[in-house]
Amino acid sequence: MATQVDKVLSWLAQNEGAGVDRLLEWLRIASISTDAKYAGDCKRAAEWAAGHMRQSGLEVEVLPTGPAEKPGHPVVLGHAPGSAAYRGPHVLFYGHYDVQPVDPVELWDSPPFEPVIREAAAGGVPGRRVVGRGAVDDKGQVMTFLEALRGYKEVTGAVAGGVKMTVLLEGEEESGSVHLDDFIRANKGRLQACDVCLISDTGMLGRGKPAITYGVRGLAYTQITLHGPDQDLHSGLWGGRVYNPILALTHILAQMHDGENRVTIPGFYDGVPGVDARERRAWEGLNMSAAESLAGIGLPAGADWGEKGYSAVEREWARPTAEINGIWGGYTGAGAKTVIPSHASAKVSFRLVGDQQPGRVAGLFFEWLKARTPAGFRWELTDLHGGYPATLPIDSVHMEAAGRALKRASGVDAAMIKSGGSIPVAGTLKRELGMSTIFMGFGLDDDRVHSPNEKFEIECFRLGCRSHALFIDELLALQQVP
Amino acid sequence: MATQVDKVLSWLAQNEGAGVDRLLEWLRIASISTDAKYAGDCKRAAEWAAGHMRQSGLEVEVLPTGPAEKPGHPVVLGHAPGSAAYRGPHVLFYGHYDVQPVDPVELWDSPPFEPVIREAAAGGVPGRRVVGRGAVDDKGQVMTFLEALRGYKEVTGAVAGGVKMTVLLEGEEESGSVHLDDFIRANKGRLQACDVCLISDTGMLGRGKPAITYGVRGLAYTQITLHGPDQDLHSGLWGGRVYNPILALTHILAQMHDGENRVTIPGFYDGVPGVDARERRAWEGLNMSAAESLAGIGLPAGADWGEKGYSAVEREWARPTAEINGIWGGYTGAGAKTVIPSHASAKVSFRLVGDQQPGRVAGLFFEWLKARTPAGFRWELTDLHGGYPATLPIDSVHMEAAGRALKRASGVDAAMIKSGGSIPVAGTLKRELGMSTIFMGFGLDDDRVHSPNEKFEIECFRLGCRSHALFIDELLALQQVP
Repeated sequence: MATQVDKVLSWLAQNEGAGVDRLLEWLRIASISTDAKYAGDCKRAAEWAAGHMRQSGLEVEVLPTGPAEKPGHPVVLGHAPGSAAYRGPHVLFYGHYDVQPVDPVELWDSPPFEPVIREAAAGGVPGRRVVGRGAVDDKGQVMTFLEALRGYKEVTGAVAGGVKMTVLLEGEEESGSVHLDDFIRANKGRLQACDVCLISDTGMLGRGKPAITYGVRGLAYTQITLHGPDQDLHSGLWGGRVYNPILALTHILAQMHDGENRVTIPGFYDGVPGVDARERRAWEGLNMSAAESLAGIGLPAGADWGEKGYSAVEREWARPTAEINGIWGGYTGAGAKTVIPSHASAKVSFRLVGDQQPGRVAGLFFEWLKARTPAGFRWELTDLHGGYPATLPIDSVHMEAAGRALKRASGVDAAMIKSGGSIPVAGTLKRELGMSTIFMGFGLDDDRVHSPNEKFEIECFRLGCRSHALFIDELLALQQVP
Repeated sequence: MATQVDKVLSWLAQNEGAGVDRLLEWLRIASISTDAKYAGDCKRAAEWAAGHMRQSGLEVEVLPTGPAEKPGHPVVLGHAPGSAAYRGPHVLFYGHYDVQPVDPVELWDSPPFEPVIREAAAGGVPGRRVVGRGAVDDKGQVMTFLEALRGYKEVTGAVAGGVKMTVLLEGEEESGSVHLDDFIRANKGRLQACDVCLISDTGMLGRGKPAITYGVRGLAYTQITLHGPDQDLHSGLWGGRVYNPILALTHILAQMHDGENRVTIPGFYDGVPGVDARERRAWEGLNMSAAESLAGIGLPAGADWGEKGYSAVEREWARPTAEINGIWGGYTGAGAKTVIPSHASAKVSFRLVGDQQPGRVAGLFFEWLKARTPAGFRWELTDLHGGYPATLPIDSVHMEAAGRALKRASGVDAAMIKSGGSIPVAGTLKRELGMSTIFMGFGLDDDRVHSPNEKFEIECFRLGCRSHALFIDELLALQQVP
């Protein structure tokens, strides 16, 4: 006899096309959170998700964030009360409905907010994929969870299949979650009842290789501008007489790494643990190929680059970095302009691990810059945002339930991996509510997250829907454990 | 009894307001040569100048440049046949009607192509000034010459007062004069009859201190792009695993100067002469203050920067430089985007002296870059344009006539100076026609050439008109010398 979950899985299979169509509808809303002119789209994307969740029977509120005079993007908060018989954990599902900016827009093969379903290119990996901004990060992944909820409601009539659940979708993940900490503190009353957080915003080890991510890096993101002369200058009349702010910025940023590609900022490595020997062995066992990854972005194996003394996977999962995410200054239009500009700017960010603290790292960087200020120049330094790193225990009852769900959904054991990306909410939930997080994500390395032609493969969408349905089944089973 | 030149000077004084109004009209035409979308404006600015010259009796043609399928901006060529009695030199006046781009446009106090006459700021140097793009570089300066021609025509009825003269106004000076060499070669027949070139596109030593410029630097202007991964990457997933093209570009460009601020490119200093001891003494006698210049751009004396072992004036007039005129890569919009971009770019230019050759220097730079290509990366290298440096003899009969004209116009001796800027036509005329150039210009150090709020002071406009009228008088006098 088919159990309830089998019926749900069957419903998901039969309604996959409709589910993908719903995703496309959501993707058409340009919810770019970092740019204020898309605030209306962010609100629409929030309302759209709220509507979907209500159809699955949740009680949903769309709540404002930030001060009334300068509001942030809203949080969607949904609640499934759980059946009277439910004794399992109260799960907090976290996701985000906001997306990254789309530039360079000219590199997209189709408009970023006119999502399409595309067949794989000839010779490429087979399988259809949704292409558009947010396809995988994070609307597509959130959708796999929302469709599982929809399936349970349709098949069983019970909201979330009877599991007690809170769903929190924020709209500022791609712009630093600036109001999320305050929101969580302000709503501690409702949230502290949750036992564990579930997030689908990470990747698998590869196609057909599901994974649970048990650690993410933190982030400190800054913008810096070096101001020199009080006006732009003619490079003929002034070249050789004044320090060019672009050249000065270049000289300074080039000192940020040493010959071993280690970050030179004093104190930067405080709180960075060595790579655990057990983890190192486990990661070696994953047989990840740096050369294969590099080939996927058009580079030869020799282009492998990073902190000396660590493998590529160690550098991504266990080591901090400093990156220049953007740089600009002087004339950048067509042709020639012989200018020495009055200032030059960069966006510089740091990925953090262990006990590194975002605010402290930004502060150390700023002190380091100030110690290098050219005579008569001045800095304009902005700490745009930060997030704490998080490493979660891999042997919890919830993590094990997620592992079983992935195994049932895919037929293979889930790999235990980390991610170099940052999902700051995990650190916040740990600090504010003592809550652990399970990262169960369905992205692939080549999904072009944050890049033109971002995609989510239908195969991954399917696995996500099935895994979430089966995780709910595992939660329902947990209540029978004394 | 008033001589003819006295009447012309008087006419210029009485018609100064109308002359400035004519300049404003010309300045309203946005003749930005480096940006193709202003091609129509360039043509209008050329026609405008042709009209003005025709009113002064010159025969004028507006001649196309470049290939028919991809034309350049036109050259305005005017001719004054000279009176039958004229025995002096045939003068070629060169100027340009094109202007620099206007960005950063937000720093202009008034729109760049809506020129205004403004009083000096309270506490500032007194005197009215024309503010707008091209006010001094070069429309305003050319206008002082054109108004002198107009004055002679009005007062004497003779075109250019009877002096034999050719006027050549080009429209590509600010974008590398890419078609000028070909134009000069193609029109060698008409131009080789000229004896000496006169250019008003340089500055004075200071307010009330007229000067003749006897040397300019050359220029090699390049654009470089470093390509790394074939797509933009997520800095969380890839940070620490791949060389960030912005970081790589920064590392490479930071090697362009050594600890003494000398350019490190091998062969760069080939053909650079030492500073002549006699010139060094003469320049010391000019009592130019580096501290005062720096104060004018909002920097303290300690901000003096450049190649060690040379004074500020030596660095500007006699030493080559390397500058980054623009840099861009990654995300440069509002807020944060955690990207490692696929490529990063810069505009890098070199000022040249002595026997340095623009094409060779660009080539040496490109070789130097290629030797630093990160593994798997590639360069896109463009030599945008170049111009030869030029130093002219200071004891010619023409140079001395110009000196006397400036003395009569201003009451003080003209200083003999050089400029760090580049006016490539001087090198071309020397190479193609063996012709020397007199640079007699009326700009000031604080005119914000190439910058927002470019200005030309009415006092300087007046001195320019008078000096050109008196130079014509000196030319007329020369014919009486046997």
